[in-house]
Amino acid sequence: MANVPSIITLLTDFGTADGYVAEMKGVLLTLAPQATLVDITHDIPAQDVEAARLAVARYWRRFPESTIHIVVVDPGVGSARAPLAIASGGQFLVGPDNGVLSPALFAPDVSVVALDVPATASPTFHGRDVFAPAAARIANGSDLMALGTLTGAPLRRRTPEAVRNVDGSVAGQVITIDRFGNAVTNLVARGGGSVLLRGVERRIVRTYADAADGEVVALTGSSGLLEVAVRNGNAASTLQLVRGSEVVLLRHR
Amino acid sequence: MANVPSIITLLTDFGTADGYVAEMKGVLLTLAPQATLVDITHDIPAQDVEAARLAVARYWRRFPESTIHIVVVDPGVGSARAPLAIASGGQFLVGPDNGVLSPALFAPDVSVVALDVPATASPTFHGRDVFAPAAARIANGSDLMALGTLTGAPLRRRTPEAVRNVDGSVAGQVITIDRFGNAVTNLVARGGGSVLLRGVERRIVRTYADAADGEVVALTGSSGLLEVAVRNGNAASTLQLVRGSEVVLLRHR
Amino acid sequence: MANVPSIITLLTDFGTADGYVAEMKGVLLTLAPQATLVDITHDIPAQDVEAARLAVARYWRRFPESTIHIVVVDPGVGSARAPLAIASGGQFLVGPDNGVLSPALFAPDVSVVALDVPATASPTFHGRDVFAPAAARIANGSDLMALGTLTGAPLRRRTPEAVRNVDGSVAGQVITIDRFGNAVTNLVARGGGSVLLRGVERRIVRTYADAADGEVVALTGSSGLLEVAVRNGNAASTLQLVRGSEVVLLRHR
Repeated sequence: MANVPSIITLLTDFGTADGYVAEMKGVLLTLAPQATLVDITHDIPAQDVEAARLAVARYWRRFPESTIHIVVVDPGVGSARAPLAIASGGQFLVGPDNGVLSPALFAPDVSVVALDVPATASPTFHGRDVFAPAAARIANGSDLMALGTLTGAPLRRRTPEAVRNVDGSVAGQVITIDRFGNAVTNLVARGGGSVLLRGVERRIVRTYADAADGEVVALTGSSGLLEVAVRNGNAASTLQLVRGSEVVLLRHR
Repeated sequence: MANVPSIITLLTDFGTADGYVAEMKGVLLTLAPQATLVDITHDIPAQDVEAARLAVARYWRRFPESTIHIVVVDPGVGSARAPLAIASGGQFLVGPDNGVLSPALFAPDVSVVALDVPATASPTFHGRDVFAPAAARIANGSDLMALGTLTGAPLRRRTPEAVRNVDGSVAGQVITIDRFGNAVTNLVARGGGSVLLRGVERRIVRTYADAADGEVVALTGSSGLLEVAVRNGNAASTLQLVRGSEVVLLRHR
Repeated sequence: MANVPSIITLLTDFGTADGYVAEMKGVLLTLAPQATLVDITHDIPAQDVEAARLAVARYWRRFPESTIHIVVVDPGVGSARAPLAIASGGQFLVGPDNGVLSPALFAPDVSVVALDVPATASPTFHGRDVFAPAAARIANGSDLMALGTLTGAPLRRRTPEAVRNVDGSVAGQVITIDRFGNAVTNLVARGGGSVLLRGVERRIVRTYADAADGEVVALTGSSGLLEVAVRNGNAASTLQLVRGSEVVLLRHR
């Protein structure tokens, strides 16, 4: 028998001030009093499924076996999109079928269930009335199959892939901007080299401290992807980088 | 004997960056190490008692029996306003006597105590020196009566009531704007119908997904109240809605 | 034998939306499943070591014995600055050697260890790869000395001291602005008196409620320092106060 799951994490785009997250926590602790709740974030930009997907990719596998991750960024709440529960890599995830749970859908052995929606569920708040109760039931040892219907084709979103050019350079793009203004790209570059950014060649360094003050550099960030940074500055605002901005890996030694 | 209370929730308007909430958590875990702390929010707009009251209304009854809710939005700290502890509906609440705890004051069997203020309490930080210690003592099994003096007339704030017009329409108003720009009103409308908003009739739908992209609609939100929303948009900024803006329920079938 | 430490607090300037804090929590709960995690804040302004230091000063001693405080505001991550673990006053702190841990370095009996950095640690994310694992090992009962090398000269930052003038007045300055716009100074004034601010004399009151609506006053805040406040207003924006703005204690009875 598996360990009884006991950690439940919460990621939403609800903010906290309106009390929606509080309602979810109340439901969870009422139905699964033994669970430990862990706030991931409630500050995902409103309805930004892509930002949530990238955050999930960072943290979901870092937690202990049998952790249950609630992920609610759900512009289609109340529509035909299914609410899902997923078992993947020894962990559980619940959230809408809009791609936000994709990082867990590429593992070799994944089960996906379309959750039953109680007739009494608010059509605008599945976080409280569908996802939190499902997470609590998983925490209480319920089998995933008891929560709904096995389903086979959940929406999978991927980070766009970088493209290798004939001259050997690799055309990539910015996939997200972090709080420090670092622009994370879809490029991978073991070791040094340089990138082309807004027509200017910039060197790849090992860490922020290897750059001069205010220098624009690229470096491999903590998720293994190349990111553009300005030492003691904000790369995104300095260079007006947004999601989708082009970054080309020129040389890579 | 009642269960020993063990969950303590925290709502404040302190933000977290200054360390005030951290001080409260330190006091709580020192005095009641067995308690489980649950952050509700610290992002209530500064001194916005009404926003806090509406949030409390959403979550307080969702938590397990014997939960202790700390609610500190307290523009009158250090003045003559009493610090309160309340037992209501199997739960406990502590916070200032400024209406912020009102949702728990309308239940049939309520006890209200004016908390003793230690001589050493900072006159500017009752959250740390009065409310957190009181919550810890309740968590440790202390009787409410041991914490102060029974009191009878705490300030009760109510949501303004909608008014039925002679033509059968109902004049209501916006009571709060949520993070998504949805404008929650004091109107209740089971089923469909329409509302009048800024001189334009808007239909009542079941959920966001029933509206066209960018359409202004009304729908029953997760607290049972009618709210104004824009599909994939921000109703409050689009329509310049604020607390108090008029919304009229026209037809209601 | 000391109690097994079980509370781990987290202060960062990471925000929560990017998932960095989530990764740290996953690492902590994987390595020390018995630990209780307590969020202090993740909203320290990016790279603002001074704001973090002042927050740490407020809360670190409020927690139970053997609490482990993780403090990661770390503009020099990956550079030569050492990652530290400190035992002080019955508590533990981990964080970079940039002054952010100073409040714990002035106690009489302090041990400071420069943490070993695993070869696999990301040079841009010691929070996840150095500080969280070190905190987990302390929570698991590891001796500080097992985590690195005893070191003797960590960077100590102090709040600038106020200066007594020949006329008996005391020249101080604003050291931080809180969320309410109160400007905390480095002045101490038991009892009443007045301050000189932007050329105008302002009285010292006991609490906000002693001021008239909109009046600029000074009062002793909850950390024992004099702060400038506007009743039901924002002193910092009204008076354009920033860190370093001069405040003079004139009379003090």
